[in-house]
Amino acid sequence: MKFRLIARHLGLLLLVLGGCMLVATLAELLGFGRDGPNVEPVAEAFGAGLATCASLGGGLLFLGRRTATQRQARAAARSRGERYAGPQLTRRDAMAMVAAGWVLGAGVAALPFFSWAWLHTDEVVPAVSAGPDAPAPEEAAGTPVTPAGKVVQAAGFDHPFRSFAACYFEAMSGMTTTGASVLGTAPHDIESLPSGLLLWRSLIQWLGGLGIVVLFVAVLPLLGVGGKTLVQFETTGPVKQGVRPRIADAARELWLIYLGLSAACCGLLVWPGGLSLFDAVNHTFTALATGGFSTRNASAGAYDSVPVDLVLVLFMLLAGVNFGLYHQAINGRWRAVLQDAELRTYLLIVLAATLVIAAMLVGSELTLTTGQPREAGVLESLRHSLFQVVSVMTTTGYATADFDQWGFVPKAILVGLMFVGGCASSTGGGIKVVRILTVFKVFGATLEKVYRPTVVRTVKIGGAPLSEGVKESVLIFVLTMIGLFVAGALVLRLLEPDQLTVVGAATASAATLMNIGPGLQAVGPMNNFGFFGSDSLIVMSLLMALGRLEVFALLVVLTPRFWRNTT
Amino acid sequence: MKFRLIARHLGLLLLVLGGCMLVATLAELLGFGRDGPNVEPVAEAFGAGLATCASLGGGLLFLGRRTATQRQARAAARSRGERYAGPQLTRRDAMAMVAAGWVLGAGVAALPFFSWAWLHTDEVVPAVSAGPDAPAPEEAAGTPVTPAGKVVQAAGFDHPFRSFAACYFEAMSGMTTTGASVLGTAPHDIESLPSGLLLWRSLIQWLGGLGIVVLFVAVLPLLGVGGKTLVQFETTGPVKQGVRPRIADAARELWLIYLGLSAACCGLLVWPGGLSLFDAVNHTFTALATGGFSTRNASAGAYDSVPVDLVLVLFMLLAGVNFGLYHQAINGRWRAVLQDAELRTYLLIVLAATLVIAAMLVGSELTLTTGQPREAGVLESLRHSLFQVVSVMTTTGYATADFDQWGFVPKAILVGLMFVGGCASSTGGGIKVVRILTVFKVFGATLEKVYRPTVVRTVKIGGAPLSEGVKESVLIFVLTMIGLFVAGALVLRLLEPDQLTVVGAATASAATLMNIGPGLQAVGPMNNFGFFGSDSLIVMSLLMALGRLEVFALLVVLTPRFWRNTT
Repeated sequence: MKFRLIARHLGLLLLVLGGCMLVATLAELLGFGRDGPNVEPVAEAFGAGLATCASLGGGLLFLGRRTATQRQARAAARSRGERYAGPQLTRRDAMAMVAAGWVLGAGVAALPFFSWAWLHTDEVVPAVSAGPDAPAPEEAAGTPVTPAGKVVQAAGFDHPFRSFAACYFEAMSGMTTTGASVLGTAPHDIESLPSGLLLWRSLIQWLGGLGIVVLFVAVLPLLGVGGKTLVQFETTGPVKQGVRPRIADAARELWLIYLGLSAACCGLLVWPGGLSLFDAVNHTFTALATGGFSTRNASAGAYDSVPVDLVLVLFMLLAGVNFGLYHQAINGRWRAVLQDAELRTYLLIVLAATLVIAAMLVGSELTLTTGQPREAGVLESLRHSLFQVVSVMTTTGYATADFDQWGFVPKAILVGLMFVGGCASSTGGGIKVVRILTVFKVFGATLEKVYRPTVVRTVKIGGAPLSEGVKESVLIFVLTMIGLFVAGALVLRLLEPDQLTVVGAATASAATLMNIGPGLQAVGPMNNFGFFGSDSLIVMSLLMALGRLEVFALLVVLTPRFWRNTT
Repeated sequence: MKFRLIARHLGLLLLVLGGCMLVATLAELLGFGRDGPNVEPVAEAFGAGLATCASLGGGLLFLGRRTATQRQARAAARSRGERYAGPQLTRRDAMAMVAAGWVLGAGVAALPFFSWAWLHTDEVVPAVSAGPDAPAPEEAAGTPVTPAGKVVQAAGFDHPFRSFAACYFEAMSGMTTTGASVLGTAPHDIESLPSGLLLWRSLIQWLGGLGIVVLFVAVLPLLGVGGKTLVQFETTGPVKQGVRPRIADAARELWLIYLGLSAACCGLLVWPGGLSLFDAVNHTFTALATGGFSTRNASAGAYDSVPVDLVLVLFMLLAGVNFGLYHQAINGRWRAVLQDAELRTYLLIVLAATLVIAAMLVGSELTLTTGQPREAGVLESLRHSLFQVVSVMTTTGYATADFDQWGFVPKAILVGLMFVGGCASSTGGGIKVVRILTVFKVFGATLEKVYRPTVVRTVKIGGAPLSEGVKESVLIFVLTMIGLFVAGALVLRLLEPDQLTVVGAATASAATLMNIGPGLQAVGPMNNFGFFGSDSLIVMSLLMALGRLEVFALLVVLTPRFWRNTT
């Protein structure tokens, strides 16, 4: 294990996080928010985080500095006019680093929430920019309101961010692009956070989304991490064309694609969406990451605007597509993109689920996330069905309507979509469309083999045959995800016997493991994760990280065997 | 498709079933029952069944008679002193035959229940032999009782057997050795059935259990049916020794083992168990088949006898063992038996589950299936934990205590055991221990491959390496079972929205697909399947058959492709 190299990379990660904190702080100080500069709380909130990033990051960089030998080698290489490569990360190093980066990163990213809560939640300012969709006033009932309009914290009714586990959960939910939040009803609602902290939540989702894409499309396949066959398979696009760019090039291209999509999304949210620039930027960050944090209590439903819904649907869908396909499209290989089996299946599932759910909603009364009722005509049914289907399937987790109140079939379909998730190498979570497709193909081949044992028929996805190793990897991955889902549900039901039904526990497990955000019942779209105890929050943080890192990369680090025979 | 040959085999199956009906009828007529000969209802009940078996069986035999050419060939072979082999069943023929046999057999086996219900349930005789554990009288409240002690059927409160779907469900539950019953509370309880019908229920379970063992150990591997690799793998025992006997020999040996075990079980139930011969025979039939039908409303708990419990536990365990191991043991290869990886895992799971559940029961108050409360000391906890664990794990489905009232962890363990099931090639259902073992081994190998991609480590079970094909078969089988379980639960929840919670629907699906019998909540050990509508009963009958025939053998017959290109 090359601890020095790992320390250096982790140090860099912390400095990047610190830089982002600085961005969020400056944005607040420059008045980029909903209610003008809110200097004191934000500065204090980010102060601890910035100090930690600087000291810990610097410390790790120092620990990971080059040895005297390496410095000499570097100098020698330079004097020859060559580039000094230095020691390379092995597969095992990379995995330990990725796992440590995620766990440590979430811890540091949680600091601003934590320090803000301890320094400021003795006086929570009610949301001032809340429009007509502000939470019903009775939600804040029982909390004494001072004449100045400030809500005073009732004893024993702490802000959730006063628990570090809750802050860690929120940060992990951000970095893994899950979107589950401990924030809920006033005075502990989302809109009572200062703008700087809201921006921070969105920013870590955007970073998490990008990190995953870069990791899975550019870095891991070359390192061979995460199950070589599995990852190569997932990135069939670039690999099979034999044009895989070098890591740095690929990462740069992905950055640009991600930035381009973000700019387009933000622009469209401002016009024709009509959102303020602050809300547009935040929702861009969380839509592109398929994260789902919102700046509004009622999630994206707060705007109740068809253009906003459509723009978000479009960019959630785009974010759920294999980013390798954008590389193809840029290089003019449109045919390959249009014929991609995973893309077709993905769009087909969205279409079919939308139509079925819409048909079942027509004529019913929907409850929007703002709490308002809405008669479901054909168009309204299609609109809310499409939004919820895309949000859940891409594992974003926005909501415009309380789907927990829908019928059994719509709910069953949505829960099913949670497991499917987005395409491979997208920012979406879940099992991934291509793996589901593989399972069905193997199933079909097995059925035929039963009565035609001599017929050798290769299982193919989009014309490319699947090797035995890939099939095995996919099948065991799906089984592992199911096993983790069941284990998560059991543990959560055990830890929260009074709060969770079996359905609540199961969907809480699925919503975190698959990186969705909301589930059903106690964790439904109108509820939040604030009622969970610290143990449950840590369990769900682990589930989010496992789901995000595609299980094996993280699970393996937890086995003793991984650490033996260090080479 | 060799329809003639299939018809001949199906005809023979019906004649065998008819023969068994005759046995049950004769037993009743000869007074082998709890309350002396009960001639009229039993004769009428079996009359229709016997007539159907005779006419339909005879008709099929006639349709399947040899052609003139075949008769000539046979005569020619005989004149040469040779044995005439005739046309052989192909893999496809065998599968169509097995599927048709199960579906048709259950239909015919349902007839005695159906005709009895229509001819006799206008006057239901309350259970006369019910001991101190008889159902509470208030259960029959609302039903007028005539002075003669006969319960007259209240309008709109039909006997469940008046629905053919219910009879079909009961028969399929018997033949698949599931043990789920539509019979429930008085006056439609189990003990109100005439002895002949009770014997019939037990007899079809015993036949079903034997049929499965013969099918899976002796016949299918040679025909190559049911996924060649999968079945060969399951019967590693005999196959790897290279001493596989011919079908007829193997079937005969299995018959003898099954008979021997049955005789031993029956003897031990009479002494030291203290059961009447009738009850001993019935429970022997259903224990050896891991079926679980009982002659008592309170299931095996009606006797509340430690010797009976222990005898049943022993024989349920023995019935859940791979019957290929008995073949080994008979041939003196005890070492191979003792070192069998599946057997060891099976016993280990039973032991661990028993201890954990017992530890959690100590100090609580158990409710026995008789309705009596019982303080759970250490020994009582161990006793009821062991019984329920073995009953559920072997997929028998007897109960001595209402485990639906136990805590979350015991219930979760029991539901988990439902999925594990018995060993391969036993009479037990479920996914099978060896498959679960395989999944874990493949999982472990995958974990290691993540960071050691170059290490080639063959996954082995008990020293024998698993081929890629076997691994793939096992993984897709487990996923298919999970998929069917989920689909079954969804359909049942949809069909019975008022009766079933999600847990009830899920355990009803698992209890039928895995051939257990009881589940939790609405289908718990104190309840029954009588409240289900016809559609649900048919769905569950299909689940039972799918689980029993290990899914693929039956699923494939349902695909159009199977029927194309008949050769």
